[in-house]
Amino acid sequence: MSLADATLEEVDQAVARADTCFHPFRKLSGDHLAKFLQQIKEELKEQKAVILGIADHETALGNERLSMEFDRTLGEIETFSKLCEEHGRFRTNLDSTDSRGKDHVHMIPLGPIAVIGACNFPLAISVVGTDTISAFVAGCPVVVKSHPGHPQTCQVLADAVYRAIAFCNMPPYCFQLVHGQNKEVTQHLIRHPRISAIAFTGSLTGGSALHAINQGRKEPVPFYAEMGSLNPVFALPHAVESGGRELAKNYIQAVNLFAGQMCTKPGALFILQSSITEDFLQALHQAIQGQATLRMLNAEIHGNYEASCLRLEKQIKLFCSSRKETQQGKGRIKIFKMEGHTFLQNKSLRAEAFGPSSMLISVEDENQFLEIAKSLGGSLTASLHGTRRDHQLAEKIFPILESKAGRVLYNGFPPGVVPGIATHHGGPWPGTTDSRFTSIGKQGYQRFLRPLVRQN
Amino acid sequence: MSLADATLEEVDQAVARADTCFHPFRKLSGDHLAKFLQQIKEELKEQKAVILGIADHETALGNERLSMEFDRTLGEIETFSKLCEEHGRFRTNLDSTDSRGKDHVHMIPLGPIAVIGACNFPLAISVVGTDTISAFVAGCPVVVKSHPGHPQTCQVLADAVYRAIAFCNMPPYCFQLVHGQNKEVTQHLIRHPRISAIAFTGSLTGGSALHAINQGRKEPVPFYAEMGSLNPVFALPHAVESGGRELAKNYIQAVNLFAGQMCTKPGALFILQSSITEDFLQALHQAIQGQATLRMLNAEIHGNYEASCLRLEKQIKLFCSSRKETQQGKGRIKIFKMEGHTFLQNKSLRAEAFGPSSMLISVEDENQFLEIAKSLGGSLTASLHGTRRDHQLAEKIFPILESKAGRVLYNGFPPGVVPGIATHHGGPWPGTTDSRFTSIGKQGYQRFLRPLVRQN
Repeated sequence: MSLADATLEEVDQAVARADTCFHPFRKLSGDHLAKFLQQIKEELKEQKAVILGIADHETALGNERLSMEFDRTLGEIETFSKLCEEHGRFRTNLDSTDSRGKDHVHMIPLGPIAVIGACNFPLAISVVGTDTISAFVAGCPVVVKSHPGHPQTCQVLADAVYRAIAFCNMPPYCFQLVHGQNKEVTQHLIRHPRISAIAFTGSLTGGSALHAINQGRKEPVPFYAEMGSLNPVFALPHAVESGGRELAKNYIQAVNLFAGQMCTKPGALFILQSSITEDFLQALHQAIQGQATLRMLNAEIHGNYEASCLRLEKQIKLFCSSRKETQQGKGRIKIFKMEGHTFLQNKSLRAEAFGPSSMLISVEDENQFLEIAKSLGGSLTASLHGTRRDHQLAEKIFPILESKAGRVLYNGFPPGVVPGIATHHGGPWPGTTDSRFTSIGKQGYQRFLRPLVRQN
Repeated sequence: MSLADATLEEVDQAVARADTCFHPFRKLSGDHLAKFLQQIKEELKEQKAVILGIADHETALGNERLSMEFDRTLGEIETFSKLCEEHGRFRTNLDSTDSRGKDHVHMIPLGPIAVIGACNFPLAISVVGTDTISAFVAGCPVVVKSHPGHPQTCQVLADAVYRAIAFCNMPPYCFQLVHGQNKEVTQHLIRHPRISAIAFTGSLTGGSALHAINQGRKEPVPFYAEMGSLNPVFALPHAVESGGRELAKNYIQAVNLFAGQMCTKPGALFILQSSITEDFLQALHQAIQGQATLRMLNAEIHGNYEASCLRLEKQIKLFCSSRKETQQGKGRIKIFKMEGHTFLQNKSLRAEAFGPSSMLISVEDENQFLEIAKSLGGSLTASLHGTRRDHQLAEKIFPILESKAGRVLYNGFPPGVVPGIATHHGGPWPGTTDSRFTSIGKQGYQRFLRPLVRQN
């Protein structure tokens, strides 16, 4: 199969084709769409072994994790397929009428959507992830830009969709994949005047660059970027006192989950100076040594991680890390330690290092806790650990965290998101570019609809 | 009362104060908010005569229209007040849980909102219009920039809100009015890092300028601009044949409604060459002569209208107009006529002239109808006139119009919007900057909320 970069003319052609099939595609019945989604599922299931093999070769995520992700992806397709069935012609089922009985509000699709998937979820946030499937449900054709980190995985997933299109007699260009190691392909795609919305998952750097390009468009269109974030964790004194060892263990486990390559990895643990006892420090060390050192997605990502850590090491103290690895490409856990005022003064330290690193911030007192909370930027998640006896402080911090995050966890660490009805995977900038919507979960399709009134 | 421009420091101070009261304000119960809204209503009612007098002095809209608008404004406040009561603590009443029973989705307020109202609705899209009231309902403090065209009206409305704040013991800075004849005041306000969203109603020129400023912000925030639009009307052959005289009359009436100073004024009527009979032309002439020539909002707006018409007259034929006016400041109806291909070739002609002018476009054939529909930009409304015998052509044009507008009317002309449950006052760019939301009607509060998950 050809994985050559699409030329800019080919990108134009893909969008023009998507646009041509927009009207026939949006007119399809809910049942027809549901059958299409079911067929995509069937095609994927048939190719499971091949897909997992290629994905593991390209991402080193391992068969177990990929198999889980594969099932999650099928589960999402199933959820959206049911949504289509239940709602019949989904898009016209949100009607309401006003007192005059004359206006009918329908939700209608925006138009062709550009999808740019993530490096860390080659199956679930990729060619057939929520972005593509929920755009289909909304009635929008999709042009996916394949990920340079796993283009073959993208191609084998796209081939499954192409077969489902043929089988279900869908408008042929409701889905297209374009390759592009060259960034210009993505840039050209998102600049295209016939693209009606863009869904991106990736780094803050990448997302910000595309966001700036999108802002240069003549006609503004929704740009949904789900980027990384700090995901701060606040450990209040009584929680550490009564369960410090467990907290240390769970923290390190969350940091090292899938080699720290999760958008919800806790990047900072804030804890009172007086809570950082010998016992707590020992628990942290033990937790780190108890974790396996995991292979990162690819050499480039591993290289970037090492470079980020080196930059941090020049500025602040490396508190502890996992053993040196002889095997190439594995990401060592690295915990950096600093004082609260250092964190407050150096905003550059807050940039996410994509990998299993995190910062332990020794907070002077309760006032500094609040000062730090207020100083934070937006995040996908924020967590608070406390017991009843921490109630007073928690009451002050909680509303601040709520205004900074899309998900607030009480006595938990940010997990991988399990897509469900109430899933919200978003948050204030720089967690995302649009905190009003979620990129994952059943509500994801809302991103690709707008209201239309039909009068008389 | 002082209507002096706020200094930039005063703008900063207003936003900082709004931010300070964000947390106390969002914590208020639904009942408390409802009482506050009811009190605003009472304060307004008490001042009705004064408010209408000042507004008429500043806008020349006349007592009848202003009285209607006043009632509509009270009606909106009533609607939102009921919403608060019904939902108790409105913002936490949109919960849902997923299959694991762990995630709870709440809708939470974004933060302080900047509101910039319209020249043509000094009461309903102004200090106490949907923007402000729906922001309150969402739990957001508001900073309103007063309109340079009617600052005294803004002040007297704001005073009513201030009294309601004192009476209901609200956080004092949940509402603030700042004056600014100088554009810098608005620009500074919308650039402020603590402003969480901006609601603007006005011209495409004004909206585009603020949109560009907003795009230069470091942290992107929602910018809701509801701007003017072409509001195309397509008159299909059988509709003209069977009801041409009525159509001509209603068209001219819609063009002249409130001196054409409506965002939904039909700016273009597309009609087959063969439908433009002597009888139809005569009906148009009669309709124009049957309309009163209305005074425009103020001298500046009248001057701009005359200038726009002069520019058009240099390029295309002025087909007919109402009698020359001896009275200063009245807006004459002006209908320009051109061929379909002229319209297709000169995109500059599509710019809205704010006032009672419109274009009559003589369309060559059915193909040109479709070509023109496809060539249109986004509009707040689009209308189609047809009978059963126009069915075939209508079926082709309708989906194209749906993709171009926020409201599609069948056998009607765009009216003033009556706010209701199903009201949608929005549409694709350049009708608005964000077609996913409405600036008027019960759903307006959605603009100021975002989802938050509370886990565990």
